[in-house]
Amino acid sequence: MTTTAVRVTRDNRSGATHADDTARQARTLRLTISCVNRPGVTALVVGFLHARGAHVVEADQHVTEEAGSRLLLRLVFRLDSPAGTSGLAREFAGEFAGEFAAEFGGPPEVDFRLHDASKRKRVALMVSRYDHCLLDLLWRWRRGELPVDVGLVISNHLDLERQVRAFDVPYVHIPVTRSTKADAERRQLELLRGRFDLVVLARYMQVLSGSLLDRIGIPIINIHHSFLPAFAGPGPYERARQRGVKLVGATAHYVTEDLDEGPIIEQDLVRVSHRDGLEDVVRKGADIERVVLARAVTWHCEDRVLVAGNTTVVF
Amino acid sequence: MTTTAVRVTRDNRSGATHADDTARQARTLRLTISCVNRPGVTALVVGFLHARGAHVVEADQHVTEEAGSRLLLRLVFRLDSPAGTSGLAREFAGEFAGEFAAEFGGPPEVDFRLHDASKRKRVALMVSRYDHCLLDLLWRWRRGELPVDVGLVISNHLDLERQVRAFDVPYVHIPVTRSTKADAERRQLELLRGRFDLVVLARYMQVLSGSLLDRIGIPIINIHHSFLPAFAGPGPYERARQRGVKLVGATAHYVTEDLDEGPIIEQDLVRVSHRDGLEDVVRKGADIERVVLARAVTWHCEDRVLVAGNTTVVF
Amino acid sequence: MTTTAVRVTRDNRSGATHADDTARQARTLRLTISCVNRPGVTALVVGFLHARGAHVVEADQHVTEEAGSRLLLRLVFRLDSPAGTSGLAREFAGEFAGEFAAEFGGPPEVDFRLHDASKRKRVALMVSRYDHCLLDLLWRWRRGELPVDVGLVISNHLDLERQVRAFDVPYVHIPVTRSTKADAERRQLELLRGRFDLVVLARYMQVLSGSLLDRIGIPIINIHHSFLPAFAGPGPYERARQRGVKLVGATAHYVTEDLDEGPIIEQDLVRVSHRDGLEDVVRKGADIERVVLARAVTWHCEDRVLVAGNTTVVF
Amino acid sequence: MTTTAVRVTRDNRSGATHADDTARQARTLRLTISCVNRPGVTALVVGFLHARGAHVVEADQHVTEEAGSRLLLRLVFRLDSPAGTSGLAREFAGEFAGEFAAEFGGPPEVDFRLHDASKRKRVALMVSRYDHCLLDLLWRWRRGELPVDVGLVISNHLDLERQVRAFDVPYVHIPVTRSTKADAERRQLELLRGRFDLVVLARYMQVLSGSLLDRIGIPIINIHHSFLPAFAGPGPYERARQRGVKLVGATAHYVTEDLDEGPIIEQDLVRVSHRDGLEDVVRKGADIERVVLARAVTWHCEDRVLVAGNTTVVF
Repeated sequence: MTTTAVRVTRDNRSGATHADDTARQARTLRLTISCVNRPGVTALVVGFLHARGAHVVEADQHVTEEAGSRLLLRLVFRLDSPAGTSGLAREFAGEFAGEFAAEFGGPPEVDFRLHDASKRKRVALMVSRYDHCLLDLLWRWRRGELPVDVGLVISNHLDLERQVRAFDVPYVHIPVTRSTKADAERRQLELLRGRFDLVVLARYMQVLSGSLLDRIGIPIINIHHSFLPAFAGPGPYERARQRGVKLVGATAHYVTEDLDEGPIIEQDLVRVSHRDGLEDVVRKGADIERVVLARAVTWHCEDRVLVAGNTTVVF
Repeated sequence: MTTTAVRVTRDNRSGATHADDTARQARTLRLTISCVNRPGVTALVVGFLHARGAHVVEADQHVTEEAGSRLLLRLVFRLDSPAGTSGLAREFAGEFAGEFAAEFGGPPEVDFRLHDASKRKRVALMVSRYDHCLLDLLWRWRRGELPVDVGLVISNHLDLERQVRAFDVPYVHIPVTRSTKADAERRQLELLRGRFDLVVLARYMQVLSGSLLDRIGIPIINIHHSFLPAFAGPGPYERARQRGVKLVGATAHYVTEDLDEGPIIEQDLVRVSHRDGLEDVVRKGADIERVVLARAVTWHCEDRVLVAGNTTVVF
Repeated sequence: MTTTAVRVTRDNRSGATHADDTARQARTLRLTISCVNRPGVTALVVGFLHARGAHVVEADQHVTEEAGSRLLLRLVFRLDSPAGTSGLAREFAGEFAGEFAAEFGGPPEVDFRLHDASKRKRVALMVSRYDHCLLDLLWRWRRGELPVDVGLVISNHLDLERQVRAFDVPYVHIPVTRSTKADAERRQLELLRGRFDLVVLARYMQVLSGSLLDRIGIPIINIHHSFLPAFAGPGPYERARQRGVKLVGATAHYVTEDLDEGPIIEQDLVRVSHRDGLEDVVRKGADIERVVLARAVTWHCEDRVLVAGNTTVVF
Repeated sequence: MTTTAVRVTRDNRSGATHADDTARQARTLRLTISCVNRPGVTALVVGFLHARGAHVVEADQHVTEEAGSRLLLRLVFRLDSPAGTSGLAREFAGEFAGEFAAEFGGPPEVDFRLHDASKRKRVALMVSRYDHCLLDLLWRWRRGELPVDVGLVISNHLDLERQVRAFDVPYVHIPVTRSTKADAERRQLELLRGRFDLVVLARYMQVLSGSLLDRIGIPIINIHHSFLPAFAGPGPYERARQRGVKLVGATAHYVTEDLDEGPIIEQDLVRVSHRDGLEDVVRKGADIERVVLARAVTWHCEDRVLVAGNTTVVF
């Protein structure tokens, strides 16, 4: 049976949004919907918002071509209302269910999310030894470029502790060996689950188990190098150079159980030549990794990335 | 006084759309709106379409930040209706005027356009002697890549006649000298006005007079080279090389009376180095010009480009 | 035993260069050398040329890092000499062998090539049904952008015959089925071997046998699509879209027996998004293929591409 | 009168190179030459090095096309010699002068520089309030990516002092007002002249006077934003957005008395759209500025950038 699964993000929870709910000032909200493609969904959503006094300032809608076509919709609107986002989400769920029950004998599955743009997503970073992605995110965050609260760095090494603490961010060292992996992941889950909205693997070199992925309940973004054509396995930079590749790139994606096979959020490349020794290629790879990861995290935190199957749509 | 200026494109005119109107099959239509930003516009438009059985498959809305904020909206929808696009446009105009009259004491100015996606825009090309942009457009058109009907090439030279005729496109030679310019433009207007939906200057090296621009009544797209930083005036390639520029680019824009200052549709660049002699830089410039112009024409013809002031939004 | 394999290109052959040899005007020559990295090679080559009155105007030298380090050198020089390029090549071979015999007990293997810049390489194109790469090369050639003589198009289909003949280039139709493949390749070899300096597979969809590659005696350049990460096998565009890739690219490479695994000459990419349907992605792929192939062919014909192992160096 | 101006860089000075001179180990040296284009220069240089046991591992030579054609040459070689670089430079000057005196009645002007690759250039940074370029350089330097010694930051503001000190780099605050400018520049000259090999303006918002430029005696690299087409004057980001530019870029160049008109070392761009508000465009501009500046500084410090007139050649 399909169900109307209205998931509300952190900002919808009663406690967190109480202050806002009573402020009665115009807030900017973002609504994202992913559902089976049916005529009338757009009108239902826009009408619902209009009836509550919302003023739509940005809209993006896309219908996927493939079989099992899905409708993906993102609306940004201003609302001057005493109602909390959680109340709004519940109301919508009722209206949506009712509308489509008549037509289809039951509501289609819908992933409806409502985000308060003024609430920054709580982000935890995981890292091993390479500093480039981590420091770039921390630095952008300090400059006010990343619309997030960075609340924690977890690492299986101690190398970067001093640099992270300079940003006044807690650094938790959780070493991982084959024998301690289960314990380490239990500790990671304790620290992350329910406390953060997003985990970013900023060059964290340990594979996360399916069990952790099942239970963590929040999205995880990863970054890895990319080449044309692919060089899977160890030593990709060396092997890419031996084939004389002219481009080195990076891919940021959501983590799924298929290692490095989750939905792609962003990719980019930079040109290399024979003048670039192995060190230069690695450095250029690091440069493009940090840019690509920063873009992916920013877009995710602006609620621009909608997932449909194994594809993303970045509005 | 602000007025509701509902402009309908060719496909809305009664004669042209008669066959379609009676076909009663689902058509794909595109609606673009540019108006003063007011709460309720999105809901009004989406509700209007929904009430007529439209199924929205693509939506893009943007509100400009600047003073005199405008709302730009593009909707692609499927409609199974006997009503013609011109009737739909008139109905919308009435509803829009009525709705906002109550609120604002008069309807806001609105530029509402409805396009039948199955109707190809009629395009005329103007060219002088350089063939690269012209041939690229003709070739893409023959391959079915450009959603247009190319119906005419006008040139002030004879150089490209044979190549154009190989594409079965009429080629009209209208020489232009200082003394014959007025006559030449009169002839151009006769050939273009009312017969085409778009003129593309595919390296047409004559300046069009303000008088022609006032009277032609259809958009004109132009392409020109671009450098960082700018090298205005004659011999830009030579001077750019003498400064050692590392990039050569192209800009496609709508033509306005301010020469080369109209709203930009698309820009791109390609890298050059000291290994590139003057000829190479010119060739790379030509390569990027044809790519940028083809993108701009395609986007325009898919009704993706909305103009707001001197800016474009490409949805 | 290592040998001094002095290969001279077409322009070195006595017959072909006779007119030039007697012209006694300054010619521009290009010399490329690939040999084991030994101190003294650069000085030997430059000294040899200087002693014969050559004026070096361009030089590029690179030493590969990897084990079995090779020295790659390209010199462009002007020479006002009655001696033919073939004589010059033979003289160099003698000097090179003598110099290194003393030091190493025998000359190192060296690939020495001398090219007369005024002699255009003779190029044959092979194509199946897609026209974009073929027409782009023919068009650049007609514009004088490609420093080659295009003398033949071979196709296993008839689709493009009319378009090729419009460029006054012979079109030979050689159908290929499983049972006729050996015969077809015999016919191809007859047409190509000894008559051309380069074969370009401009989207030729048949695999060339190892036997043909062994016997053809001239380089072959191929173009194929590329994605990040790789999507090997059939339907790459569909599968890439299903993963939501953000970039589509192309790779031009020399053909070796390892299908699509030969030394890469050039690669590039273009950005795609969810707004691009499958057709758009295919079209953008075609656009980048023709650009990448044109670059690779141009560079090869300017003798800029040196092969070392499975890598290229593009000077 | 033309003179043989042999300039030797810091690493040639007797004191600095004493340890190396006696080490008698193979060193990697880089030689750059810029001189009037004459036959025989390449052979003279390569022969000179060979006679002293040098093993050339990289070579790049380019002859400029323009009137007053110049020859630019860069050689990287290994040398196992007790002679210091300054001795080598003097010997070369003598040989070069002698060789060409016979032919031309006097030596051509030549800019000959010899750099010990193991000696890092001493770099001073100047900055006002924007941190992005400064921190990116400091961070790359700490990672070992930049082959330099950063020895000083000069700023006309105090904003970045704490961040710079975290890198253990001295921070000197020299405020600049109209009335104190002359004094401020005197202080800057004291700190820089003779103590550093390069000054980098990492978003230093004061114009340096011609008098300072005349006396400083070392190259200065600057970075500034760039758009297509140009938006000179104040508020470039706002005005670029109002025209709807699709690209925002940066240019790194050597500082000359013509403000922002010196020889360009590197340029690059990044794509923007209507989705990017003014803040986003400024942020993307900052991102591309730091990448372009880091490339320019790296290439300069690897002695890859040769200046000819107002052009650079980046080998």
